[in-house]
Amino acid sequence: MRILSGIQPSGALHLGNYFGMMNRMIKYQQNNELFCFLVNYHALTSVFDANLLRKQTFDAACDFLALGLDPDKSVFWIQSDVPEVTELTWLLSNITGMGLLERCHSYKDKTAKGIPASHGLFAYPVLMAADILLYGGEKVPVGKDQKQHLEVARDVAIRFNNTYGETFVVPEPDIEDNFATVPGIDGQKMSKSYGNTIELFADEKTLRKKVMSIKTDSTPVDEPKPIEGNVLYDLYALFLDDKGKAELKERFLTPGLRYGDVKKELFEVIRDYFAPYKKERDRLAADKQYVLDIMQKGARKARQAAAVYLERARRNVGLDYNNV
Amino acid sequence: MRILSGIQPSGALHLGNYFGMMNRMIKYQQNNELFCFLVNYHALTSVFDANLLRKQTFDAACDFLALGLDPDKSVFWIQSDVPEVTELTWLLSNITGMGLLERCHSYKDKTAKGIPASHGLFAYPVLMAADILLYGGEKVPVGKDQKQHLEVARDVAIRFNNTYGETFVVPEPDIEDNFATVPGIDGQKMSKSYGNTIELFADEKTLRKKVMSIKTDSTPVDEPKPIEGNVLYDLYALFLDDKGKAELKERFLTPGLRYGDVKKELFEVIRDYFAPYKKERDRLAADKQYVLDIMQKGARKARQAAAVYLERARRNVGLDYNNV
Repeated sequence: MRILSGIQPSGALHLGNYFGMMNRMIKYQQNNELFCFLVNYHALTSVFDANLLRKQTFDAACDFLALGLDPDKSVFWIQSDVPEVTELTWLLSNITGMGLLERCHSYKDKTAKGIPASHGLFAYPVLMAADILLYGGEKVPVGKDQKQHLEVARDVAIRFNNTYGETFVVPEPDIEDNFATVPGIDGQKMSKSYGNTIELFADEKTLRKKVMSIKTDSTPVDEPKPIEGNVLYDLYALFLDDKGKAELKERFLTPGLRYGDVKKELFEVIRDYFAPYKKERDRLAADKQYVLDIMQKGARKARQAAAVYLERARRNVGLDYNNV
Repeated sequence: MRILSGIQPSGALHLGNYFGMMNRMIKYQQNNELFCFLVNYHALTSVFDANLLRKQTFDAACDFLALGLDPDKSVFWIQSDVPEVTELTWLLSNITGMGLLERCHSYKDKTAKGIPASHGLFAYPVLMAADILLYGGEKVPVGKDQKQHLEVARDVAIRFNNTYGETFVVPEPDIEDNFATVPGIDGQKMSKSYGNTIELFADEKTLRKKVMSIKTDSTPVDEPKPIEGNVLYDLYALFLDDKGKAELKERFLTPGLRYGDVKKELFEVIRDYFAPYKKERDRLAADKQYVLDIMQKGARKARQAAAVYLERARRNVGLDYNNV
């Protein structure tokens, strides 16, 4: 099955990204055709600093490659290296009703938060539909916030097929609930917008500080610690198999455990877990041309897949010269 | 000066198009860099029949070439042969305020007339801005209906330059009133939407019928005929130089003139005037590959000009890889 995933290059990755998204990716790339791309065209709706966008895009490429996204198994590229997606955006625009876009919560939420109401922000779901339809994506992993946009992509695909004849695969959403919701250091969902993240590739000092400030309850040392809703337990458990989790649980339930000790331990666990990835990431970041070559190669593969659907769409709307 | 003009490939050309637009084109191509293109991406906002769009696009190419648009002097191409314009559309979208588009009369007018409110129709002015800015158009001949859209293009250019640094030429409108407003056979402005047109390349029978049905007043034969507001006079005068016009005026003012005789005469004038163009048009229409080669060559020239502005825009927003 062809699975499609667009990722916003929006700065340093944290545990929430890793255990939410990366796990999925790695799982998918074993048994599927994974198409994964860094959506820098989309990022333009909120990033107006060219250097920042360049840096975030390149950093995200290094992050994903270092963490195990395999450019030989999967197709991994930077969105703007296949500008054909913007042409498809225009073709889709003409059969996308304004009402469909006006009903999108994401646009309303963003502008309510004070983000300027630009046409790019409004047209975002059309570009996202093009992202999916251009590559014949069958299954698209989405979070709750993108569920409605995937509905738009489905509507647009169906409408296009009805208007111009069979052209696109109608994509299915993949809203998997099995993956852990990772709590942030304050107990809310880990998210950059809450400022409660633990970054994967932070320096030791920052990492230690973050881990030591994980919110804990005030259960006295000589009492058993609660498991349910215990952020420290939940974060630690991410790094453990079932046996490890059972042992950790046993320790929490045994009086005498000091949260401070567990935090020090967790700091080392996180540091050691990501140490090899961090090393690989440093190596990649230092070899810019190597990374760019990988991304260019990915773009070439993506472009080949895109040509099938784009040529069909151009022909079906009447932009070609056959039979004039 | 670089002059830019996009033309909707919307069916058979009429005298209004010819004496309004073609005259301008021919004048411009003598002393300027004329960039002229058939806007089939725009046409997609209203044409949902692929065969019709293909035919109208090809027909328009034949029409303009036959009528004297010189592909060696000017750059003449089909919009969708330079799909880069859709990428620029996206880049511009992110700095185009929704309010700017919501205020556009054309969108409001079209949807009020019952044309479905698609996103393409709404985003039309952004694509038009991209059409102009992609080629560094300095001067853009516009009719009244497109004046507001050119304002959008100017606003967008200025906003982009302010946000990302100097990138685009800010285009100037060229609203020239010297050119004749051609009346239709019913006396209103000649326009396909009024059904009052006289087509350039109509067959003789249709042409005769159209000319014979030009609206005239009921002045008796033995009285002088009015000149002011006389549709027959105005249409005939299009084909005359100053001396010819003076003679025609004299004939109108002399009692005894029969409108029916003048109409027969005008029918022959029109037929004979366009006969050589029609012959050339038939020759072109029969040699599809020749026409397509010309258009492809035009697209290559257009693409070269586009690359300058597109590369600059991509770099200024941060889609390139320099200095990552």
